[in-house]
Amino acid sequence: MKIDMSYGSGGKQTGDLINQVFLKHFNNKTLNRLEDAAVLSVEGKIAYTTDSFVVTPLFFRGGNIGKLAVCGTVNDLSMMGAVPKYLTAGFIIEEGTELETIEEIARTMALTAKEAGVRIVAGDTKVVDGNGGVFINTSGIGEVMKGGISISHCKPGDAIILSGNLGEHHAAILSHRMGIENQIASDCAPLNSIVQNLLDSQIRVHCMRDVTRGGLATVLNEAAEQSACSVEIWEEALPVSPEVKGFCGILGLDPLYMANEGKMIAVVPGNQAEKALKAVQNSKYGTNARIIGTVLEGNGVRMKTRLNGLRTIDLLYGEGLPRIC
Amino acid sequence: MKIDMSYGSGGKQTGDLINQVFLKHFNNKTLNRLEDAAVLSVEGKIAYTTDSFVVTPLFFRGGNIGKLAVCGTVNDLSMMGAVPKYLTAGFIIEEGTELETIEEIARTMALTAKEAGVRIVAGDTKVVDGNGGVFINTSGIGEVMKGGISISHCKPGDAIILSGNLGEHHAAILSHRMGIENQIASDCAPLNSIVQNLLDSQIRVHCMRDVTRGGLATVLNEAAEQSACSVEIWEEALPVSPEVKGFCGILGLDPLYMANEGKMIAVVPGNQAEKALKAVQNSKYGTNARIIGTVLEGNGVRMKTRLNGLRTIDLLYGEGLPRIC
Repeated sequence: MKIDMSYGSGGKQTGDLINQVFLKHFNNKTLNRLEDAAVLSVEGKIAYTTDSFVVTPLFFRGGNIGKLAVCGTVNDLSMMGAVPKYLTAGFIIEEGTELETIEEIARTMALTAKEAGVRIVAGDTKVVDGNGGVFINTSGIGEVMKGGISISHCKPGDAIILSGNLGEHHAAILSHRMGIENQIASDCAPLNSIVQNLLDSQIRVHCMRDVTRGGLATVLNEAAEQSACSVEIWEEALPVSPEVKGFCGILGLDPLYMANEGKMIAVVPGNQAEKALKAVQNSKYGTNARIIGTVLEGNGVRMKTRLNGLRTIDLLYGEGLPRIC
Repeated sequence: MKIDMSYGSGGKQTGDLINQVFLKHFNNKTLNRLEDAAVLSVEGKIAYTTDSFVVTPLFFRGGNIGKLAVCGTVNDLSMMGAVPKYLTAGFIIEEGTELETIEEIARTMALTAKEAGVRIVAGDTKVVDGNGGVFINTSGIGEVMKGGISISHCKPGDAIILSGNLGEHHAAILSHRMGIENQIASDCAPLNSIVQNLLDSQIRVHCMRDVTRGGLATVLNEAAEQSACSVEIWEEALPVSPEVKGFCGILGLDPLYMANEGKMIAVVPGNQAEKALKAVQNSKYGTNARIIGTVLEGNGVRMKTRLNGLRTIDLLYGEGLPRIC
């Protein structure tokens, strides 16, 4: 059955969609009340964020837009040292989308939310003209475990830990669009368990960021600028899987500018680097973590190449890959 | 200048858009930090909600999509007896949209947020292919002033107060789309001051709902069903402006099923009805409020017509007006 405009009217069909799909999968007491807003108890400081997802295709190797929408917001909260607690989900559905598609997305969102320990407590559905596309906004609230973690708190002498292989989400989406058969899967994953392990290990984390649109290069440039430091990374330390390396070689892509959806950097005091690395590696999604660089006085981002040269790493200019997340 | 895909890449152009438009207008300390999530202090229980806005046209008499996006979420929080505090804004922009359009929307959002006393503390921007359209998701957090207000708490004997004229947002959008010249303006407005007045007047409010998609008929049906009561309203008590009445007459529209964006119902104990009415009428957006009906034992919604008949009022079936909000 296909979604038509009546599902966005706020009347009978909207109610059916909510009951038969969203309440069925997201099922929890708060959401089931169907009030104008969820009423919640939170403790201490909260982290609060929003992210919209417009990825195409909706389903790809390693995930779908729903998994991405839950992970993206869970990860943004986690990067502020918060335990993700509550999410909202706003669906904008293009006419002609199969109801089964929405249900499969909702099912995945529910599974991913369960893994990340968050509840989807409020939602909204709109239908627009179009051709079977879906956009999802998720906002999220987390309880801050450790304050003072900030993109502006990197310090000279800090070590930069990357939680795993670069470029996988980007390469998976691009492979799908180009019709290339390979085994590259999106790394889309909730990173809250890595953060929990870091903080449980008493690491004095200065900064964390997930590596998404714009890639590692963009994240490091933001960190360098906001912290008024310079960043040096080491090419030979950067983890890239052989498959993604091959894929990038053929297409002339640079993994430094490719999006991940399940990778993060943690910037920690140099003398805690090894301990922090172990904490990340002991996490489900951090087994291939590496120390990839260091924070220095100065400004900008440079990479020590395999040939011992020093290459300046700029922000991403231009288009990147459209609708990657 | 037109927005292209590069503005959604997460790189340089996305940063420019954020700095030159969003930070300029939404300017506040929390947002300016550009962290992955805002860190906030909240007290007591919170209300939390989300809403996406896909209205077309983007600009209409009485408002634009940005004003709607702020009011809609402010109102959802208010309906739970909460003081709206923080909003997030997620923009999905179709390629080809003029940068000036986005700036005008952002400017209006900032003004409306200021009026409602909320801060926009986190945001996100995505660009998709298309033809100059804009979708906006807002989520919001409020601090609950008075708990126990619920769509399921209407009680027999309660009075139903409607804060003003029906159908104005719907009629304004439809007039615009049909190219009809008239003076009908959207009623789009933040309703938190009405709620504040009701609670300051010590009214023991049982239920509040804003009258949006699906119209008053749908809201009352939800209240009757969730509260396991019946609702009776009085046709002659329903406020509709002469212009909207004329417009509906020509087109065969029923104001009971038409969307507002600045009207609400408050369901209060019968013996507080007059006091509550005064509190609403003393609010900027409630001057034309009326007591429009009562809650009874039983189920369903009925309207006593001008001829003293009793007409059953069902949920909205079918399409309503697509992309009304």
